Amino acid sequence: MYNHAPKDYKCPICPAVKGLENEVTYIKQTDLVYKDELVSAFINSFFIEGNLGHVIIVPNKHSENIYDMPEEYIRQISEVSKKIAGAMKTAYSCDGITTLQNNEPAGDQHAFHFHFHVFPRYKDDNLHANLSHKRLTTPEERSPYAEKLKEHLK
Amino acid sequence: MYNHAPKDYKCPICPAVKGLENEVTYIKQTDLVYKDELVSAFINSFFIEGNLGHVIIVPNKHSENIYDMPEEYIRQISEVSKKIAGAMKTAYSCDGITTLQNNEPAGDQHAFHFHFHVFPRYKDDNLHANLSHKRLTTPEERSPYAEKLKEHLK
Repeated sequence: MYNHAPKDYKCPICPAVKGLENEVTYIKQTDLVYKDELVSAFINSFFIEGNLGHVIIVPNKHSENIYDMPEEYIRQISEVSKKIAGAMKTAYSCDGITTLQNNEPAGDQHAFHFHFHVFPRYKDDNLHANLSHKRLTTPEERSPYAEKLKEHLK
Repeated sequence: MYNHAPKDYKCPICPAVKGLENEVTYIKQTDLVYKDELVSAFINSFFIEGNLGHVIIVPNKHSENIYDMPEEYIRQISEVSKKIAGAMKTAYSCDGITTLQNNEPAGDQHAFHFHFHVFPRYKDDNLHANLSHKRLTTPEERSPYAEKLKEHLK
């Protein structure tokens, strides 16, 4: 329903939840911070300058958006978002947490596999102005965030 | 945990979920679009210019933020967000949906009762730039949105 992925779309998130690294996805397995039967969470490949190391939580089974997502997945993602928020507070010493989830191109959805963002927030970080200036990072730049977060998700 | 409401805080959301209208809250009962045992959803009292009639979903029992919220509430809010998203697509003929949830003042939280925003999105609506220019509306301005949405939540 309301799908926008082209017919030959190569999903950049499906390989990552299957443990694969290839040319379709920027996600490396060192980005993985949480996984259960239903959902996985990764450090996002793109960083927002004032909110480094933010996380996306995704369903392990492909759904494009919130309209398509079976309820058990959306419920589990919300529960995991609470875990990640708590862990991020300690691991990153951030001053707040914002969660954000976009559907359809007009809603700023770029990757057509449901993904739920969890951002660390800091005083005057200007998150909303900076969302349009995301920067692709290297796996080496991301891994310290994954390591810190995993410590607090145990 | 990580609470910011002052000691004598008068919660503007608690009266509304109890069915009350008073000077502590802008929310009127005509703003209510959904209610079950755990959560309620209202048309937000403040409008964002390009995203009129957006909704907040709140726990009926007071929790300040995501860290405090019992899991059954966050799970239910996520399930209701999916219902509202689907209803909004039809009721508002919008081009997308964005959900947003803020915690702590540094995370742009202004009302200290957990609330989960569901925004209708439109091409080039510039939501993120406009978030800081919210406008207090009248109950009369909000009620057509509540009526439309309720029609599609039945």
